[in-house]
Amino acid sequence: MIELNGDERLDFLFTDQSMQIIQSPSVFSFSLDAVLLANFASIPLKRGKIIDLCSGNGVIPLLISKWSKAAITGVEIQTRLYDMAKRSVQLNQKEDQISLILGDIKEMPTRFGNNKFDLVTVNPPYFKTINEEHQNKNDYLTIARHEVYCTLEDVIKTSSQLAKSGGKVAMVHRPGRIVEILTLMKQYKLEPKRIRFVYPKQGKDANILLIEAIRDGKPDVKILSPLYTFDEEGNYTEEIHNIVYRTE
Amino acid sequence: MIELNGDERLDFLFTDQSMQIIQSPSVFSFSLDAVLLANFASIPLKRGKIIDLCSGNGVIPLLISKWSKAAITGVEIQTRLYDMAKRSVQLNQKEDQISLILGDIKEMPTRFGNNKFDLVTVNPPYFKTINEEHQNKNDYLTIARHEVYCTLEDVIKTSSQLAKSGGKVAMVHRPGRIVEILTLMKQYKLEPKRIRFVYPKQGKDANILLIEAIRDGKPDVKILSPLYTFDEEGNYTEEIHNIVYRTE
Repeated sequence: MIELNGDERLDFLFTDQSMQIIQSPSVFSFSLDAVLLANFASIPLKRGKIIDLCSGNGVIPLLISKWSKAAITGVEIQTRLYDMAKRSVQLNQKEDQISLILGDIKEMPTRFGNNKFDLVTVNPPYFKTINEEHQNKNDYLTIARHEVYCTLEDVIKTSSQLAKSGGKVAMVHRPGRIVEILTLMKQYKLEPKRIRFVYPKQGKDANILLIEAIRDGKPDVKILSPLYTFDEEGNYTEEIHNIVYRTE
Repeated sequence: MIELNGDERLDFLFTDQSMQIIQSPSVFSFSLDAVLLANFASIPLKRGKIIDLCSGNGVIPLLISKWSKAAITGVEIQTRLYDMAKRSVQLNQKEDQISLILGDIKEMPTRFGNNKFDLVTVNPPYFKTINEEHQNKNDYLTIARHEVYCTLEDVIKTSSQLAKSGGKVAMVHRPGRIVEILTLMKQYKLEPKRIRFVYPKQGKDANILLIEAIRDGKPDVKILSPLYTFDEEGNYTEEIHNIVYRTE
């Protein structure tokens, strides 16, 4: 049995109830964004090395481990979240496939060496830390959501260093940051190849950006068909339903 | 009466048949892209100065003149197209509002001075000139479609020089060039504010990019709701129909 601390609970990751994950409303619960990223990224299925940065409670490594035999490393800087992820990996008996590291993403290129991974996934903090109120470093959610420990440039630079030449970097972020994201990717030799915008519903502005780049790739990006979260009745669209309630 | 040369014909610009434009299949006919740009741009309606670069047969100045009282300048480098535009302006008795210039867009900042326009619109050549076959400078369509006389950087640099601080630059282009476009806009102090992707139909990649930037604006771009050209039966969607068959 796995020990649950405080307000932690176990949630199923797939409709077939094959995997569970430790969540906590006060510490960290994964978002739709992470699920969309895991489903968007070009995942090597049989072999290869994947690293997930800003891993939180390990949702992306766990999701990917359902589909892929590749070795997956998750990196998380917050001890409390790392601990949740660690227990979820044990709970699902994924210790042979998923390695978790408690540490700063910026130190990973030194730890692993440059250009070692086939795929880097990252669901980084979305918000710049401008207000004083966002600078409380003891707040788990603040650190997960705001650029306290790593800026967007840190994330993109580190991802570029970790990816093999020809390897992929898949990120989820806010559409409002796309100009910075594309500019920084170009600067760090990541060539954007696939972009998909997610819209809350028809007629609204996009609220999620999915982007995948290839390290040292050739310029030519595709803007994939839009993904809508909700239909006009406020229910998940069929495509989102099939992602969120994916059975395998 | 206006003289028509060669295979030129007159087409109506609006369903109310209030305006006509000279077109030629062998020289230049305006595209859906130009119509979408004119409808996408934030047009000053009562006063102000607008300049349209790479003006072709003058379709964008003519469309805008239907809705706005602003003074409009159109710049076209090809004598044959400039001549068509000139005659269309006369035909519609828009000489007081629309001025046409035969010349190179890169010379316009010297001609007008920097930062003089409230809005710059541009439907530039989309394709880099890589192949020999595309370097025939006597081919009207080649010059309109390929970067023979101006590169993307020329277009963005010139637009930035012409726009007032706080003025807008609206462009239509191919989605595959978005990384270059955003990078160059940042470089030339144009802050992207509104982006809209046009998709041929649901489930397909985008094939047209509409983008509007503000000279010296604050960073924060919106990705507007997707625009689909055709529905599942292959007919114009209602939104496109209302743009193309706009009556006023």
